[in-house]
Amino acid sequence: MPGVPPAHYAYLGPEGTFTEAALRSIPAAAKADLQPQQTVGAALDAVRRGEADGAMVPIESSVEGPVAATLDELASGDPLMVTREVLLPISFALMAAPGTGLHAVRRVATHPHAAAQCRRWLSIALPDATVEPSLSTASAAEGLADGSADYDAAIAAPIAAEHYRLTVLAADIEDNPEAVTRFVLVSRPAEPPLPSGRDKTSLVAFIADDHPGALLEVLTEFSVREVNLSRIESRPTGQGMGRYSFSIDCEGHVDDARVGEALMGLRRVCPDVRFLGSYPRADADTEGVAAEKDDAVYRDAAAWLGRIRSGRV
Amino acid sequence: MPGVPPAHYAYLGPEGTFTEAALRSIPAAAKADLQPQQTVGAALDAVRRGEADGAMVPIESSVEGPVAATLDELASGDPLMVTREVLLPISFALMAAPGTGLHAVRRVATHPHAAAQCRRWLSIALPDATVEPSLSTASAAEGLADGSADYDAAIAAPIAAEHYRLTVLAADIEDNPEAVTRFVLVSRPAEPPLPSGRDKTSLVAFIADDHPGALLEVLTEFSVREVNLSRIESRPTGQGMGRYSFSIDCEGHVDDARVGEALMGLRRVCPDVRFLGSYPRADADTEGVAAEKDDAVYRDAAAWLGRIRSGRV
Amino acid sequence: MPGVPPAHYAYLGPEGTFTEAALRSIPAAAKADLQPQQTVGAALDAVRRGEADGAMVPIESSVEGPVAATLDELASGDPLMVTREVLLPISFALMAAPGTGLHAVRRVATHPHAAAQCRRWLSIALPDATVEPSLSTASAAEGLADGSADYDAAIAAPIAAEHYRLTVLAADIEDNPEAVTRFVLVSRPAEPPLPSGRDKTSLVAFIADDHPGALLEVLTEFSVREVNLSRIESRPTGQGMGRYSFSIDCEGHVDDARVGEALMGLRRVCPDVRFLGSYPRADADTEGVAAEKDDAVYRDAAAWLGRIRSGRV
Amino acid sequence: MPGVPPAHYAYLGPEGTFTEAALRSIPAAAKADLQPQQTVGAALDAVRRGEADGAMVPIESSVEGPVAATLDELASGDPLMVTREVLLPISFALMAAPGTGLHAVRRVATHPHAAAQCRRWLSIALPDATVEPSLSTASAAEGLADGSADYDAAIAAPIAAEHYRLTVLAADIEDNPEAVTRFVLVSRPAEPPLPSGRDKTSLVAFIADDHPGALLEVLTEFSVREVNLSRIESRPTGQGMGRYSFSIDCEGHVDDARVGEALMGLRRVCPDVRFLGSYPRADADTEGVAAEKDDAVYRDAAAWLGRIRSGRV
Repeated sequence: MPGVPPAHYAYLGPEGTFTEAALRSIPAAAKADLQPQQTVGAALDAVRRGEADGAMVPIESSVEGPVAATLDELASGDPLMVTREVLLPISFALMAAPGTGLHAVRRVATHPHAAAQCRRWLSIALPDATVEPSLSTASAAEGLADGSADYDAAIAAPIAAEHYRLTVLAADIEDNPEAVTRFVLVSRPAEPPLPSGRDKTSLVAFIADDHPGALLEVLTEFSVREVNLSRIESRPTGQGMGRYSFSIDCEGHVDDARVGEALMGLRRVCPDVRFLGSYPRADADTEGVAAEKDDAVYRDAAAWLGRIRSGRV
Repeated sequence: MPGVPPAHYAYLGPEGTFTEAALRSIPAAAKADLQPQQTVGAALDAVRRGEADGAMVPIESSVEGPVAATLDELASGDPLMVTREVLLPISFALMAAPGTGLHAVRRVATHPHAAAQCRRWLSIALPDATVEPSLSTASAAEGLADGSADYDAAIAAPIAAEHYRLTVLAADIEDNPEAVTRFVLVSRPAEPPLPSGRDKTSLVAFIADDHPGALLEVLTEFSVREVNLSRIESRPTGQGMGRYSFSIDCEGHVDDARVGEALMGLRRVCPDVRFLGSYPRADADTEGVAAEKDDAVYRDAAAWLGRIRSGRV
Repeated sequence: MPGVPPAHYAYLGPEGTFTEAALRSIPAAAKADLQPQQTVGAALDAVRRGEADGAMVPIESSVEGPVAATLDELASGDPLMVTREVLLPISFALMAAPGTGLHAVRRVATHPHAAAQCRRWLSIALPDATVEPSLSTASAAEGLADGSADYDAAIAAPIAAEHYRLTVLAADIEDNPEAVTRFVLVSRPAEPPLPSGRDKTSLVAFIADDHPGALLEVLTEFSVREVNLSRIESRPTGQGMGRYSFSIDCEGHVDDARVGEALMGLRRVCPDVRFLGSYPRADADTEGVAAEKDDAVYRDAAAWLGRIRSGRV
Repeated sequence: MPGVPPAHYAYLGPEGTFTEAALRSIPAAAKADLQPQQTVGAALDAVRRGEADGAMVPIESSVEGPVAATLDELASGDPLMVTREVLLPISFALMAAPGTGLHAVRRVATHPHAAAQCRRWLSIALPDATVEPSLSTASAAEGLADGSADYDAAIAAPIAAEHYRLTVLAADIEDNPEAVTRFVLVSRPAEPPLPSGRDKTSLVAFIADDHPGALLEVLTEFSVREVNLSRIESRPTGQGMGRYSFSIDCEGHVDDARVGEALMGLRRVCPDVRFLGSYPRADADTEGVAAEKDDAVYRDAAAWLGRIRSGRV
């Protein structure tokens, strides 16, 4: 379609990593221009400056935990909003240059995190091989492709084999087949996607002091409206001792009455609250919150309040 | 003013009691028709049937506690609303027929509650007098007036001396000079009086079951909006075991944002909530809740929610 | 059994009332000396002075609500303890002197509260009779017995007919057949009765100020240990504005681990807590709290704490 | 001292990193045998197997957030206990082989995290230099020492300059001078160090389900005993959806009455609680919790409970 410029998406590079795979999993990326960036901050800044329409970055790993750089970059600087999340099973493959067979592998390169996640398979399938650390899984693969490698094979994401035209010697070699990483697609602030009935809302709540009840106060704003939390992390704010922020994911959409009221409650008790977006949950395993029914309960209560305020009890 | 019929007010009789004094303390009663009733229920029913424009009834005594009949009558039947409260110091006088002096008093009649509240004074001023029980303090005074009394003096409200043209032999004879009774003026449902900045709201919350957290849930709806409670009574509902209602007074007006939101919260978690009115507090000893400032905080939070819902973060 | 002096029990008189019936319902009263007293305070003081071994007083009516005099007398003065509760169905009878038939009844005397509770029956069975107020139901019956009555019949407790040798013309004439009054047997402080597995504990908690969270703090001490409340009343303490006490009944026995820990928690957050006793529940309709199983959970946690404190994790 | 074998301490290597500096900061490490390990898991396993007496590992960075590997390794496997924490300011130095001056630096190598933390300094002091990623800051320094480097200088911890006999060209070049990393010394389970009055307790609480109140329930066990939390992280347990654990640091020592009671409370409401140790706080900026005074309050409440249980009210 001439005249329509392609979208631009930044992502945490290099090419051939799981983040690129996460980005490629969304339809909008199909014909878009994809820009690998060296750091999460660089990817997000490309969005802030308008050089990219969105950025795909990792935010939480079932193995490694929260990605602090992403949480902190979203919590400060010009506001950004999450519009989508992607859950990607973290599956590793052993790959080599075409012509190399598994029995010929003596030295394997990969990122130490990947080595840790494939330890058992390596001890069984390649008990005599040595493992050398690389800067990223993709860079280990790249070395095989450009001939600079002094090792025989790399452990990397399957997408790296495609990228560098390597041969997969063994797939799904991770010890924990349920390992998954959560990525988020981040855009400049805009009206959130419409509620899907199974949404998630992300935010950062700043707390002024750390008396025993402070966090409880924050959580009560959610629980009193029966809004479930799916993630909470305390984060030091670096603004003097005893000041914390909490990075929180809750169930529901900012347009849901109960979520809206909980956010207003937070806004009243916290010195600052940063809204990071409402977007459909990527995991389909939970029942959708009956948002419409919920809203009816809230509307009924509001109508009742209107009646008693005007004497029609 | 020809053409304007006088207002009619019912009250818990008989004439000459503290309830009549409470009713007479409000300007609107000055030219109104006052109707004593035998019971609280009869006084309230007169309002429900439209025979009275309002009813003054006792609701709480600093000495005797809550007046169950009033609480229960307000909690059931056709809805009524409290529009005003009156705090009346409970001060007793010893009164006799004109011509009787204090030294001639051998037998004193009064209601047992009044006798109990003047015990110390009696033991000092009239150590040899006997005290006989009467049905009400007013009926003890009435007996002196109509000559039916076989006693010399009565302990009653000062208003009874006026009524029955008796002589006050001693005033302020109560042992506890801080005793006070709270009366409420009850009307048919109508728009509550405008917020005065120092209001009180009364309601009844029905709870479906009595698990340990049920009452806590109710109270949390108030505390999370920082709405203070000034009175709470659990009341068995009589609808099977383990079903309770709570009679509650909270600070603030139903038109205040925080009170309104707390009431909506209650409405969502309780099977039934009955609103009993918002009205100015009779005690002037507490600072007015800064309702306007409060509402600004709520408006700010609502405006913020509007902004983030439309992407203007 | 010669040499064993009879027990002495005080009760709220006069003779022939429901309180006497409540007292007579306990085995210990069978051969005891029963002393009617004019007021609740007098009955309790008889115990405090050692003139009575116990006192039976009403504490709560399903129709009239809490008995303020009893709550307040227990909350102040020398400590006393509740050792037993009695639930008595409040059933009224119409009684007259022998020889008087129902059709001959023109004037009925009774206490106004009793009249209110039999209103419907009176309107049907004796539509033309007038009702006259008496000081107590028993005094109405007494008047018939001593011939001083200018009325034909009395509404009183069945026990009054026995006392005054009157004829019951109609029994169970109360409008609400589920009306019940709760009485307590009060003694000087002593080790509470052993846990029965279905106990109740009474106490008064004094709160220093009335910030929104104060009552919530008190209730949380119970709910965090899953101790259910069966009654709560706020009571002004009369010690300046904004100072409240709460009269509370909770499920369980002071010897139960969870109740003991909740009481310790209260003791830490309240300026004063008065323990009023642990005693078996009179209503058999609820399942016994599995106190033994509960205690096992507490013992397990305590044993675990002992292990981690000594490094045996 | 002949006959006393030196202690053995494992730490997250390689040599010349901040973790080694943290370990060297404790007196016990002075004459000990220090063993760098490739991963946190390997360091902790050395302790579990008895090959090391303790392990120093990073647990939280003010810049990078929690160290997931450490949290997860402590939460599973054979129990371990934290006995000490070390807070280390994260200060970077630019270092080069002796003879290289700052003006000769064209290419700088360092770990990407370190590059991110010195970005501003680099843009000012070395605007034309290129930055190349290395596997660790120490490996960048090592390359200069062994001559394998194709770059001129490294950014690393000051301890790396000592190790590899490099010259510090510029010290304290980090953009955020308050960046700090928290390390913990981990041992096999043993009686915790005696309370110092300013302690911290670490634990992991497992939650069975994720209803809105579950986390609130956990936090209430702390707040009701006024135990402050200094860190909380939700962690997916990997045992099916909707199952979470919470990694928590609270103020106080397991031997403190309030902390002990809070832990017992947790133990009762959580399917599992893992105690990870009580140890002195490394930051001296907060007032010591008045643990002794606290314990007196708890002892008083326990004594009071003893009295009322035996009838001595």
